[in-house]
Amino acid sequence: MLSKNQAKSLRALHRKKTRREQGLFLVEGEKVVAELLASNWCVCNLYATAEFIATYQSLIRLSELVLVECSVEELTSVSTLVTNTAALAVVKMPEKSTPPPIDQNSWLLALDGVNDPGNLGSLLRIADWYGIQQVVCSTTTAEVYNPKVIAASKGSFLRVAVSYQPLDSFFSQLPAATPVLGAYLEGESIHHLENCPSSGVILLGSEAQGISQALAAKVTRKITIPAFGEAESLNVGVAAAIICDNLKRLSSTH
Amino acid sequence: MLSKNQAKSLRALHRKKTRREQGLFLVEGEKVVAELLASNWCVCNLYATAEFIATYQSLIRLSELVLVECSVEELTSVSTLVTNTAALAVVKMPEKSTPPPIDQNSWLLALDGVNDPGNLGSLLRIADWYGIQQVVCSTTTAEVYNPKVIAASKGSFLRVAVSYQPLDSFFSQLPAATPVLGAYLEGESIHHLENCPSSGVILLGSEAQGISQALAAKVTRKITIPAFGEAESLNVGVAAAIICDNLKRLSSTH
Repeated sequence: MLSKNQAKSLRALHRKKTRREQGLFLVEGEKVVAELLASNWCVCNLYATAEFIATYQSLIRLSELVLVECSVEELTSVSTLVTNTAALAVVKMPEKSTPPPIDQNSWLLALDGVNDPGNLGSLLRIADWYGIQQVVCSTTTAEVYNPKVIAASKGSFLRVAVSYQPLDSFFSQLPAATPVLGAYLEGESIHHLENCPSSGVILLGSEAQGISQALAAKVTRKITIPAFGEAESLNVGVAAAIICDNLKRLSSTH
Repeated sequence: MLSKNQAKSLRALHRKKTRREQGLFLVEGEKVVAELLASNWCVCNLYATAEFIATYQSLIRLSELVLVECSVEELTSVSTLVTNTAALAVVKMPEKSTPPPIDQNSWLLALDGVNDPGNLGSLLRIADWYGIQQVVCSTTTAEVYNPKVIAASKGSFLRVAVSYQPLDSFFSQLPAATPVLGAYLEGESIHHLENCPSSGVILLGSEAQGISQALAAKVTRKITIPAFGEAESLNVGVAAAIICDNLKRLSSTH
């Protein structure tokens, strides 16, 4: 049973301020909590239904976490999700280490002010599908521990490393020859990119403004997605997916 | 100024039941309302700020609609959007005519139970980007007049014809040789589709179940999006975009 105090602290984690102060965040929903338990992320508390506990018994390390059995109603009442929830975990944010060294043999996503948490979550899922293990975010980008980011990432937040830093200093640290492909409404068609590199940085701008003027000079190639109809633009997640798909196709053999 | 009765009828249109009874729906937000006013859709009422009215004066046909000047606060209080709104229109649903004849020279999207309104809106925007003018939905698919669909479509609902019908009867009416490409997790790679047709039907399944068993027999080619990482799946809108992008690339010359 969920106590009033427990319910209160869970609801407090809906707020960014509390998450930051406590270094904790929420992971909600049966499938993603099961995936979380199988990972090496540090789960502090697990609130789950008897059924969930029975099903995933082998994944629940009781020596490491506090387990509270709850009803679906109790869980749903403290969840940010609108649908019923069978499990909810309180997770420790990983220590802020220096960002991982840049893998020069793979692609990396750089996000310049992606504001919408749903879009950021969607971008992590897409990065994960295309084997991109690093996402570097400007400090103006949405917070990765926002429950909407976690939900939209469908578990991909467990596998994709996300770091925050001013993008101009990130770009200054890159090896000089690193290709930086910037997504613009006008540029080389992503369908037929001559001499397509097999690694580098894919830079995506904010939903409203695109890539900021200050970063435009860092872009070594402007790329674009050919349009065939009348829509003015594509959602940033959709655009990223189409770009990753073409880059992977152009630089791989399967 | 917005009267209590006006506010009440606007809020009532947040509900599907009222929309269906009255044959009316809401379009919210400055940019999309401006696009709506420039189209030939039938706008019954326009609620807008003085600034909006001044800016888009030439588009407002006073002989055809009732105009109410409101404050941003009033508009936001009756809107489904969380951000401030400068304009809100009550629009007449187009008459349910027989679905438009199938254009045999272009692609068409068929949606088998896409439940999420945001996904449906996103699919309309993608269809519009790729010049797909028809979307046929199973009767289990989200309602196109849901404000979340309208918002996510970013004005593309004005250009893409959406119809609802049982998909098995839709498929029975198709000319026998029509290619039906079904999106599966296992199928031919969309990157290198031999003898790619230049028109046909792209069938997408629901978020949770994919293409229903009953429709599997209608699929003439199973296609798939190559994965390079560990994510289990892609969002249905993202998947549609990648498929459309590849089909257009394979069957076009620019």
